[in-house]
Amino acid sequence: MKNTYLKKANDNMPHIYEREIRPDVNPGILQKDDEFVIDLGNHYVGYFSFVMNYYDIYIDAPVRLSIQFCETKRELEDDFSSYKGSLSSSWLAEEIVNIDFPGEYKMPRRYAARYIKIKVVACPRKLVLKDFCFRAVSSADTDSLIKCDIADEELKAIDSVAVNTLKNCMHRIFEDGPKRDRRLWIGDLRLEAISDYVTFNQTDIVRRCLYLFAAGNPDKNGYVPAFVYENPDFVSGHWYLTDYSLLYGATVCDYYNHTGDEALFNELYPVVSAQLEAAYSSMDDDGVVTYPGYGDIFIDWCEGLQKITAFHGVYLYVLDILINTLKKLNHKDVDLHIKRYNEAKNVALNLLFDKDKKAFVNSKDEMQYSVHSAVWMILGGAVEGDEAIGILSDVLDSKDSVKPFTPYMHHYVVEAMVKLGMMDEACSYIKLYWGSMLDLGADTFYEVHVPGDPDFSPYNDRMINSMCHAWSCTPSYFIRNFFAKK
Amino acid sequence: MKNTYLKKANDNMPHIYEREIRPDVNPGILQKDDEFVIDLGNHYVGYFSFVMNYYDIYIDAPVRLSIQFCETKRELEDDFSSYKGSLSSSWLAEEIVNIDFPGEYKMPRRYAARYIKIKVVACPRKLVLKDFCFRAVSSADTDSLIKCDIADEELKAIDSVAVNTLKNCMHRIFEDGPKRDRRLWIGDLRLEAISDYVTFNQTDIVRRCLYLFAAGNPDKNGYVPAFVYENPDFVSGHWYLTDYSLLYGATVCDYYNHTGDEALFNELYPVVSAQLEAAYSSMDDDGVVTYPGYGDIFIDWCEGLQKITAFHGVYLYVLDILINTLKKLNHKDVDLHIKRYNEAKNVALNLLFDKDKKAFVNSKDEMQYSVHSAVWMILGGAVEGDEAIGILSDVLDSKDSVKPFTPYMHHYVVEAMVKLGMMDEACSYIKLYWGSMLDLGADTFYEVHVPGDPDFSPYNDRMINSMCHAWSCTPSYFIRNFFAKK
Repeated sequence: MKNTYLKKANDNMPHIYEREIRPDVNPGILQKDDEFVIDLGNHYVGYFSFVMNYYDIYIDAPVRLSIQFCETKRELEDDFSSYKGSLSSSWLAEEIVNIDFPGEYKMPRRYAARYIKIKVVACPRKLVLKDFCFRAVSSADTDSLIKCDIADEELKAIDSVAVNTLKNCMHRIFEDGPKRDRRLWIGDLRLEAISDYVTFNQTDIVRRCLYLFAAGNPDKNGYVPAFVYENPDFVSGHWYLTDYSLLYGATVCDYYNHTGDEALFNELYPVVSAQLEAAYSSMDDDGVVTYPGYGDIFIDWCEGLQKITAFHGVYLYVLDILINTLKKLNHKDVDLHIKRYNEAKNVALNLLFDKDKKAFVNSKDEMQYSVHSAVWMILGGAVEGDEAIGILSDVLDSKDSVKPFTPYMHHYVVEAMVKLGMMDEACSYIKLYWGSMLDLGADTFYEVHVPGDPDFSPYNDRMINSMCHAWSCTPSYFIRNFFAKK
Repeated sequence: MKNTYLKKANDNMPHIYEREIRPDVNPGILQKDDEFVIDLGNHYVGYFSFVMNYYDIYIDAPVRLSIQFCETKRELEDDFSSYKGSLSSSWLAEEIVNIDFPGEYKMPRRYAARYIKIKVVACPRKLVLKDFCFRAVSSADTDSLIKCDIADEELKAIDSVAVNTLKNCMHRIFEDGPKRDRRLWIGDLRLEAISDYVTFNQTDIVRRCLYLFAAGNPDKNGYVPAFVYENPDFVSGHWYLTDYSLLYGATVCDYYNHTGDEALFNELYPVVSAQLEAAYSSMDDDGVVTYPGYGDIFIDWCEGLQKITAFHGVYLYVLDILINTLKKLNHKDVDLHIKRYNEAKNVALNLLFDKDKKAFVNSKDEMQYSVHSAVWMILGGAVEGDEAIGILSDVLDSKDSVKPFTPYMHHYVVEAMVKLGMMDEACSYIKLYWGSMLDLGADTFYEVHVPGDPDFSPYNDRMINSMCHAWSCTPSYFIRNFFAKK
């Protein structure tokens, strides 16, 4: 099966569109220690080239340049040699190049950048650098971007940056971030896919990604890996995030619901089913879905976040989506999943919900009060209507609750609001969170964004943060589905 | 004419021979900060490639390596960041490379190296480096190396290193040094050409080089430039060394005397003639060839060296070679050159020679006593026989004389000895000077070598010295012509 999936993944390899950006820059006559900045005018992903020539006298030595690629203006001031973060410094996009002869110099690697800082490190004579060209690449066909009438100017601006974020993460796969972490993660795939359907509507890349996970090595319970690599060749991930594995099922259902492609759904249904089976088989004695002493649950990056309740909510959420999909198909397994959904919902309300406090607080989660638990239980349908609105509003307003951290979790907060019909709140939330990145001059939405704390990094050094990150692209999903004229 | 010369230069572009060196190296499983050395077993010039792979887990970050190319073992300990020399640090052969994906990595630039030091600068996981390949290139066809019976083992070893030096300087042109200074210089061209005739005997590269200088921009007196560039396109040099310009004529004559190619001689004779005319027209009132307030004379690198007498000797030397060549051709200009030679010889003996001291010491050269003056006057035929032997022996033995410094000047000392029949002295001199580089483990002869002072650099930092340099390859010329069975 693995080879069949990989073959089909490669059959769905998206076309890469190219566009040449030729910034109008004239750095003048250069010599050793001179430096200058090229502004591409927007954030792009691609390949950089330029022409080097001598000015008056042939340069009888290699020309050594330092070339630093920056996603944001702020990074222009960064000194990479001071990096102290937890991820490999090799992600910092600086090259030391030596150019032997006059002529065009094409840098072989791909970069994510709006700004390019060039410094002449060593050269015995005057030189000229010119004909700068950034060959931007993406599998998004920008000519086919779905037109959309967004009356609200702020939402229009947010949509534009979200579309740019998605475009710059679309390559052979939906990448996580084009600067760093070019893997395919399930959590990001799902958010990119649902955003793609309302923007570029390119489904080949979604099919490719779904096949790649199907080709991954499942763990002993049957969970697909949280990520895979595919460049130059497929390599299965070695880490499992059980909420991501369940969301693979949601992604397959989303795809069917958008495309009506029954054949693909049926082909991948065994993999989807295996994820739910893995969760079902790892319930504790009380019927709470848990993780069996290995692997991990993602949910969000928050120090000390308790994840059991939220994870149980993810299980309900995916079951709910699956049931609705199977109903359309008159699938034989509908009743099985409905039975399991109802059992799990009862467990949630009996064991993970404090009826007096009207809050998802419980002993299994050390009585932790979090937005995450509420959001996922609402998305899973454990509570509904005004009761759910009250629960969500309270936990968001509370001084004591654990708050969402990543753009990924912020997405699901908005999704919960939309589900509950809290459209004004959803709109305000998008403007408040994603809009505040625009205030910082964002061309693309960031991997991590803590309003008021622009230095924050989950890796202990802001320089390594990815400033164009897939899981931040979903404003377009909300705006185009719910806040624009169709 | 320039375009015609350039076209003919390109018609004589030599074929580049390639040979893959595959060192048997297994550095084991590597991680950040590990380093190891590859020994190619000999000095080569060419392109390096290898395969990078992950060990157990796919490396989800670029692999950053530092790769340092060293011509000698000693350089393995060098820290390039401490470089303080006068030439551009961009010649120091270290690359910082970032490798995104597993697979073969081909470094695009050409290097001169026996040793390659690789350090893992940044990588978050274990990696494997393997399949190291050095694709050595040279326009010397080593299969066609003229076989030679050299009885003396020491001379045989010296010849072997000299041949390797020449081979590693033979590319599109006779390069000066494959590590640094890849220009074509006249002084080096001549020594490489006469060594080539008795080793690889490839004359296309000689023709190419002769045409390239003919295409150069002459100065206002008609002197051809001291060097030219030709990669990727021809660029004339901007510096003139008048002794080098004269030696262009000797190089054309050598070529004709070796090949009998009368057509090429006649084609380039106007350029040769122009060099001698330039010298003739720049004589001072006493008839001493001098330089007209601009440009320079090379002769040798010695602090404070007075060059007028030696330069006058170069003029005589080139005239003498030209006269002998023109005689063979029954050329109409023979008598003119003989007349000028005799005049210049008389001036040399009357004004540049102290008859009492039997030494080339004179007021024009601030009474400086140097080997250089004696050698070039002997090569120019100003003195002959026992008188010349006495002069040369005295100046070499004197504590007060300025001594030869570069391998280039050492060559002409040996050439003077050979001319005077001092064969034992010539043999000893070769063993003493070039042989002492073998004692240091040389695979190729160095740009500069001061016995007893291995740290010496004309550029204030040994790290920038070129350890394979064209002008040091002439032991093969002497050994094969005079110390081997033909």
